[in-house]
Amino acid sequence: MNHDYNKESIDLHKKHHGKIELAVKVPMNDKDDLSRAYTPGIAEISREIGKDPSLAREYTLKRNTVAIISDGSAILGLGNLGALAAIPVMEGKAAILKSFAGVDAFPICLDTQDTEEIIKAVKQLAPVFGAINLEDIAAPKCFEIEERLRRELSIPVMHDDQWGTATVVLGGLINALMVTGRETGWDAKIVINGVGSAGVATARILLSYGFKNILFCDSKGIIHTGRQDLNDQKKELLAGSLLGGHEGTLADAVVDADVFIGVSKAGVLTGEMIHTMKSNPIVFALANPIPEIMPEIAKEAGVAVMATGRSDFPNQLNNSLIFPGLFKGVLDANIKQFDITMFTRAALALAQHVKNPSREEILPNMFDKELVDVVANTVR
Amino acid sequence: MNHDYNKESIDLHKKHHGKIELAVKVPMNDKDDLSRAYTPGIAEISREIGKDPSLAREYTLKRNTVAIISDGSAILGLGNLGALAAIPVMEGKAAILKSFAGVDAFPICLDTQDTEEIIKAVKQLAPVFGAINLEDIAAPKCFEIEERLRRELSIPVMHDDQWGTATVVLGGLINALMVTGRETGWDAKIVINGVGSAGVATARILLSYGFKNILFCDSKGIIHTGRQDLNDQKKELLAGSLLGGHEGTLADAVVDADVFIGVSKAGVLTGEMIHTMKSNPIVFALANPIPEIMPEIAKEAGVAVMATGRSDFPNQLNNSLIFPGLFKGVLDANIKQFDITMFTRAALALAQHVKNPSREEILPNMFDKELVDVVANTVR
Repeated sequence: MNHDYNKESIDLHKKHHGKIELAVKVPMNDKDDLSRAYTPGIAEISREIGKDPSLAREYTLKRNTVAIISDGSAILGLGNLGALAAIPVMEGKAAILKSFAGVDAFPICLDTQDTEEIIKAVKQLAPVFGAINLEDIAAPKCFEIEERLRRELSIPVMHDDQWGTATVVLGGLINALMVTGRETGWDAKIVINGVGSAGVATARILLSYGFKNILFCDSKGIIHTGRQDLNDQKKELLAGSLLGGHEGTLADAVVDADVFIGVSKAGVLTGEMIHTMKSNPIVFALANPIPEIMPEIAKEAGVAVMATGRSDFPNQLNNSLIFPGLFKGVLDANIKQFDITMFTRAALALAQHVKNPSREEILPNMFDKELVDVVANTVR
Repeated sequence: MNHDYNKESIDLHKKHHGKIELAVKVPMNDKDDLSRAYTPGIAEISREIGKDPSLAREYTLKRNTVAIISDGSAILGLGNLGALAAIPVMEGKAAILKSFAGVDAFPICLDTQDTEEIIKAVKQLAPVFGAINLEDIAAPKCFEIEERLRRELSIPVMHDDQWGTATVVLGGLINALMVTGRETGWDAKIVINGVGSAGVATARILLSYGFKNILFCDSKGIIHTGRQDLNDQKKELLAGSLLGGHEGTLADAVVDADVFIGVSKAGVLTGEMIHTMKSNPIVFALANPIPEIMPEIAKEAGVAVMATGRSDFPNQLNNSLIFPGLFKGVLDANIKQFDITMFTRAALALAQHVKNPSREEILPNMFDKELVDVVANTVR
């Protein structure tokens, strides 16, 4: 059946006025109920927390509640549409967290796009939350915001556009290398096209995992040590790779590459470029909604494992495979902070959870009921 | 049955880890559901809101969602216990809003107590909300915060400690004057003891309604024009009353008074002081949890109508009678801002909703199913 998801989405949102609501989990039927849930009994709860702040986790929603925070500066692939336009996306993530992991989440869309103001606002509203999910915040400010909040807040902070994507890519890549006979593939030549939030985190997790033969490309071509226009992130990535001296275009970069990872934009990879890659190449074309190359063209050009971000092709690399379990894990186990080791463990668990990996199935199905706990357990 | 509400409240909060949770109101069972509630369909919703911000009300939770915001500086009668200790109270209000009025609310407890920072933070997090309920913020900064936010935000803002209390007091007073044979009681002599957030708003609504013979007392006694220590609010109230020249103690103030309204502290009103009031006096002793005078003593001293903030005595003057309906009203009718006329209309509706007012029943029961709509309709 063909769907017009744009129209169906409009109908859904018009009908329900959004996707999430509050629910009350204690009885509120008479004065006794209110005397326990509100005054006078509630005064005792406040006094106890006033004396021992750690009890907030015991007595309030803080224990199981994530703030999903955006400034609307990089909404999906749409760009900077501002706070109000970010609400439906953040509500969608909240709906996924609750449906898939039983985690409560609330969307906060900030009416500021200034790095320091965002950091300050998140710190000020943090008390009621058990963890922070940053979302759709443009690069490069997203890096500083995440790093500073991790240092300055006492609850876990994760920018899902970075680490959700990076974790799923690593998980998928581990199985893709295996099913194409590359075993561990430590020496695979990898091209990452796009060094925004997802590209930088993907590069960091691949370097940290042990891949060293990585070429990075941006809109100006291969990033190399001779370029004068590199920001801190690009310099850091170059320093971690063995291929920092190469120059040229994206087309030059993919020659003899085993793996192409696109977190860039529609149509930048061609069938001809794929013909210059090693045999049985792996292509993750993750630009949304239109990938760097369409799966039909890639397969025609000889790609062995093809993945996109879309639900209508095989091998969907979707953050929803990973972020519900990660947040459930840190909340349940009262983990102080996310780190790259945690993401790497989650990626391995994701890869190992596929019973019989094949070229058409390198990752689990996101509706797999066991998946959330498999991921959450790696955090504990 | 005797309840130990402190213990029962601890048990309740330990068992449930708070009182509210998120609920998902759209299907999330398969890829088609996700394609409508999240990508790719969601992109169309964001694009539409990006083009026409007013559609956020149509397509998102903004339409029905209130932020309950506190800095924890004046929690119940407990004082300044900070943001974490405020969470259980704000969660309780959210539970009341949902249970009584079907309004979604989310608690935000700010990790700052600075006036300008609170104003800025609330403005920055406002996009996702349809209205703002300020709560348990200390006087006098609560006045400036509410006033500035009303001017600087485009959604309704109400400090419930001020206007919830003031509205319920006016509603109760209208019926109390009637059942004690004072008819409209325009010339009644009224003493308001306590000029914090609730006292100032109560004074403002009574003056605005037409009462002019009001004496205001603070911890130093009667507030009069000769005092050099008056803040802006106290000066404003004096200017509105005909009794601005009187001096003395609280005991002096209540001589020949028809009405005592206490929003101050436990035990400051004595039986002897009541003997000096007019016959059939009205006493609203609203300090929580221990009132300015206990009902048994007041009745013994000849009080005709006695009200407190407590659920275990008759005539509970409780904000919960009014704030759920007020927020439902402004959200449903897309009202731009609260104002004192709206609160006055709500107070009258509250008074008139009591079929047979008596000395033991000057206000409706808060579990009266019609009450929310009676109040909400006055806003529309």
